[in-house]
Amino acid sequence: MDLLDIKDPSFLKKLSIKELEELSKEIRQFLISKLSVTGGHIGPNLGVVELTVALHKAFNSPQDKLIWDVGHQSYVHKILTGRAKEFDSLRQYKGLSGFPKMGESEHDVWETGHSSTSLSAAMGMAIARDIKKEKSYIVPIIGDGALTGGMALEALNHIGDEKKNMIVILNDNEMSIAPNVGALHSVLGRLRTAGKYQWAKDELEMLLKKIPAVGGKLASTAERVKDSLKYLLVSGVFFEEMGFTYLGPVDGHNYEDLLENLNYAKKTEGPILFHVITKKGKGYDPAESDRTGNWHGTGPYKIDTGDFLKPVNSPPAWSKLVSETVRRLAREDERIVAITPAMPVGSKLEGFAAEFPDRMFDVGIAEQHAATVAAGLATQNMKPFLAIYSTFLQRAYDQVVHDICRQNLNVFIGIDRAGLVGADGETHHGVFDIAFLRHLPNLVIMSPKDENEGQHMVYTALQYDEGPIALRFPRGNGLGVPMDETYTKIPIGSWEVLKEGHDAAILTFGTTIPMAMEAAARLEKIGKTVKVINARFIKPLDEQLLSSILQFNIPILTIEEAVLQGGFGSSVLEFAHDNGFYDAEICRMGIPDEFIEHGSVKMLWEEIGLTTEEVVKKINTMVIKKQKRA
Amino acid sequence: MDLLDIKDPSFLKKLSIKELEELSKEIRQFLISKLSVTGGHIGPNLGVVELTVALHKAFNSPQDKLIWDVGHQSYVHKILTGRAKEFDSLRQYKGLSGFPKMGESEHDVWETGHSSTSLSAAMGMAIARDIKKEKSYIVPIIGDGALTGGMALEALNHIGDEKKNMIVILNDNEMSIAPNVGALHSVLGRLRTAGKYQWAKDELEMLLKKIPAVGGKLASTAERVKDSLKYLLVSGVFFEEMGFTYLGPVDGHNYEDLLENLNYAKKTEGPILFHVITKKGKGYDPAESDRTGNWHGTGPYKIDTGDFLKPVNSPPAWSKLVSETVRRLAREDERIVAITPAMPVGSKLEGFAAEFPDRMFDVGIAEQHAATVAAGLATQNMKPFLAIYSTFLQRAYDQVVHDICRQNLNVFIGIDRAGLVGADGETHHGVFDIAFLRHLPNLVIMSPKDENEGQHMVYTALQYDEGPIALRFPRGNGLGVPMDETYTKIPIGSWEVLKEGHDAAILTFGTTIPMAMEAAARLEKIGKTVKVINARFIKPLDEQLLSSILQFNIPILTIEEAVLQGGFGSSVLEFAHDNGFYDAEICRMGIPDEFIEHGSVKMLWEEIGLTTEEVVKKINTMVIKKQKRA
Repeated sequence: MDLLDIKDPSFLKKLSIKELEELSKEIRQFLISKLSVTGGHIGPNLGVVELTVALHKAFNSPQDKLIWDVGHQSYVHKILTGRAKEFDSLRQYKGLSGFPKMGESEHDVWETGHSSTSLSAAMGMAIARDIKKEKSYIVPIIGDGALTGGMALEALNHIGDEKKNMIVILNDNEMSIAPNVGALHSVLGRLRTAGKYQWAKDELEMLLKKIPAVGGKLASTAERVKDSLKYLLVSGVFFEEMGFTYLGPVDGHNYEDLLENLNYAKKTEGPILFHVITKKGKGYDPAESDRTGNWHGTGPYKIDTGDFLKPVNSPPAWSKLVSETVRRLAREDERIVAITPAMPVGSKLEGFAAEFPDRMFDVGIAEQHAATVAAGLATQNMKPFLAIYSTFLQRAYDQVVHDICRQNLNVFIGIDRAGLVGADGETHHGVFDIAFLRHLPNLVIMSPKDENEGQHMVYTALQYDEGPIALRFPRGNGLGVPMDETYTKIPIGSWEVLKEGHDAAILTFGTTIPMAMEAAARLEKIGKTVKVINARFIKPLDEQLLSSILQFNIPILTIEEAVLQGGFGSSVLEFAHDNGFYDAEICRMGIPDEFIEHGSVKMLWEEIGLTTEEVVKKINTMVIKKQKRA
Repeated sequence: MDLLDIKDPSFLKKLSIKELEELSKEIRQFLISKLSVTGGHIGPNLGVVELTVALHKAFNSPQDKLIWDVGHQSYVHKILTGRAKEFDSLRQYKGLSGFPKMGESEHDVWETGHSSTSLSAAMGMAIARDIKKEKSYIVPIIGDGALTGGMALEALNHIGDEKKNMIVILNDNEMSIAPNVGALHSVLGRLRTAGKYQWAKDELEMLLKKIPAVGGKLASTAERVKDSLKYLLVSGVFFEEMGFTYLGPVDGHNYEDLLENLNYAKKTEGPILFHVITKKGKGYDPAESDRTGNWHGTGPYKIDTGDFLKPVNSPPAWSKLVSETVRRLAREDERIVAITPAMPVGSKLEGFAAEFPDRMFDVGIAEQHAATVAAGLATQNMKPFLAIYSTFLQRAYDQVVHDICRQNLNVFIGIDRAGLVGADGETHHGVFDIAFLRHLPNLVIMSPKDENEGQHMVYTALQYDEGPIALRFPRGNGLGVPMDETYTKIPIGSWEVLKEGHDAAILTFGTTIPMAMEAAARLEKIGKTVKVINARFIKPLDEQLLSSILQFNIPILTIEEAVLQGGFGSSVLEFAHDNGFYDAEICRMGIPDEFIEHGSVKMLWEEIGLTTEEVVKKINTMVIKKQKRA
């Protein structure tokens, strides 16, 4: 059949298993082909083809609620709900989102991006259903990685207690974004290997024969009983202890097993945990054999070879620059320990991990724990480097407040993917960090203008011993500037004058500096000289330099790739008024008060007016107005 | 012995069990007597007398690290580490803190206030110890309630996986702040009732006899084996599955059991979970027999009767006003559902729970889950009321961003204990909320001037259907104003002029309105009239009213009981400059950029200069300067 003709998943009801298998092949070919051009989360989606088809066959979406945890594995769901024709625009500006979006389809009943929210959402929906006395199945689909997130565990606990009807699909792909960690994973590992076939009769008989005669030292006898029967009882016991009926594990690529269990689950009261084993990248060799995580999400690739079509000779990635600098410094300071919440690959910590396996901790999808482990380390005079994406640091806000900043501990927070991130869109933009961190006492926040300053800032952070210090850097690559061979400590709270000027001043940092410099150059051509400041410390401000600029009484423009409300520009306003510079004219550019969707960073910047033209226009207007008044 | 003479816990090493028991009695008498005057967390501390003494006898603090989760149960620890003489100043301004504080004693190795952080902190300390190749015991003490917090579960998962040496004390008091909820609690319940005595020989024999002959339908036979052996195997299996060696449960008031197990734990490799059963309020009848949670933390009380010495005829508590208004409205709107993360008593939801047991969910200490359950409910056209303390909302920041605001869902967030909370101190002040919420798109934030406006705001929030809306209200009681009998919808974003004036304007909201009014009255006496605005919408601002004030070009003072950086005052600055009111003179009063310690709210206000005198002085200075320039 032509996938482009699918309007909704109702056609699945009539298909035989053979036809479903044929459909799976077509879906895989479609995904492999489309994503080779657009890029996207190929591995996770190839892994859930049969599972998604089976769910849409067994349930009636949208009356029944399919809730995709994280959401990057919803492409098959998108195809089955009438969106195949939009895949050419996947993750592009104004195109199909890479995550579930209510605005796209009534079948997207919950929007995600961050992990581990599906069980809580499902619980809310189940409560609503029961109060309204409606009948529907509520089916969250969560990966083994996402299950280690604290809020998923909080939800399991509550769901098990309330005994609401709900069918939780545990999509266990043995490999979440990074090789999974955690005790829970080891439980899943045992479930996986135990399998249902070991319930076979002869196994059981053999076991029972092994039970020792009772007598002797009791505790040890009991222990032996326990050990010998344990693998029998372990299967699912973890979830059954939590109040779930455990089904599985089954092969998530086998329609018969999937449908049989789903139909059984539909008839069973109370919360079900249906354990499905899937293979990431299934059906496409390069992705299926991937052990590095590189096929989790990709850019464009060559279908036949699986080679990634990367731009050649690009400058170093920011993540790599930061992590490798930390690694070099760790050679001379054994107090340096790296912590990542499940992002060793994204944060480019592979090198650090290889060189310092005992000083690198991937704690799983557990941002709260990661932040407080760092705090605990710092109490013991260690120098923890917490590598975390800006958007995921949101999960650890309280731990940054209560454990790190309040105790004024020497934690170095590397805030990766700050600013707009592009294709991942509104759930992943790192635009709130300045606003949610700037008001925290004791915290220093820096942002480098280029990768050379970046390495000096990493050095500065790891030398700093007066409290927490954060380095905010963007997704993507550096500028390709020459790198100094020795590191320099940058004085805390010191800004840098990049260009002198007398008619106006631009205060900015990080990614928006080139725009400011270009605007200043253009303005110079029309006779206006603009001072450009690298405001590399967002907190504390360079009060001396800022005061001197305010004393000049020239118009000031602040630019930041972050939300305007409560952001860097606001701190400049605060400083001006707190210090009596009431006639300062301060104009702010940044991210407006709305969630920004996906698309290339360049196009998003244009959408929100973060352009050289706009900088030129704003400064020009301010300067002309000022001259008129004078 | 005289507890006041204790300098450090080393004296415990020589004491016999009989002497320890004698000491316990003295400690209990001391606590009951001292807290009857100062108030404090009596219940939790009476429950851990023996446990704390046993820990200090078995371990060598501070080389060995005792890490108190939450920390309100650290009074006995404070007595044993030389702080008995400071108990007269407990929880008072500049007095002994009610929580561990590094500045008080080298034995306080970790500071807390919020729950569920101890395991992560312990993990950080264990990693540091092992890298430094030091020897020490790391002993987090966590309650059964705190264990339901997501970050504690994240930590269990990681600790079990890493197999670090660590002795986790599970202080299971059957009743955390509220009657505990959650599946985990039910596991603990089974462990509790199973006990170690059921490992007795005859039990085991009986069980083995019950195992059915193998044959017949296999799955069901296996099920029966499982059921019949389950209670044998369940004991500790949950924690053993996570990779811990499980010890217990033992009576936490029996020194022999405690010391025997602690000494065994010290000799055991890998992570230990030692399950201790304690009784909150142990040894003081009124507290021991409490089932309501009222003896968790108290004010002063009469020792002999256990009567609380409350001020008589005080106005209604804010929590009660809000929750009871929600309850009344819930009678007419069955879409209203209340959610609390373990604070049904603190949030005064008992009435709601009694009347609507099916529409009230105490999810345990699980703020993240609570917020997203509310979001899930809202997707189904329900009207969830998320009752949460300001300081604990910090835990759900990402869920508010990603699940509630981003999806623009109709969740009503009741932010309780906003502003300074007094005796609980720096971990509990609700002063960051405006700064961490104001930058979120779609969110409305209100704050009422008195309880009558408060009830109208609850009504407004539950009528509002355009997205999330938050009501920020303080700890303590209302003002005692007359209450309207019918509810009125307050237009979103509308401020109220409380007093007209021409020389200056004060923009403020909530608790600081009386101060503003009094200052205005005083200023009037010296010939200056001040406009006072009830800026009851912190977001959105009343742009029309604010514009009109800015057009007058009079000095503006903003006052807020919240952090200044990125706060309400900043939003006024932002508005002024965004709209070209560059010569506005805006001065801001609020909480400075530091963590504020414990003490009465009145004294804390004085410390930070939040006083009528300061308001008068600031306005006077601004007005005089303005007149000089004119």
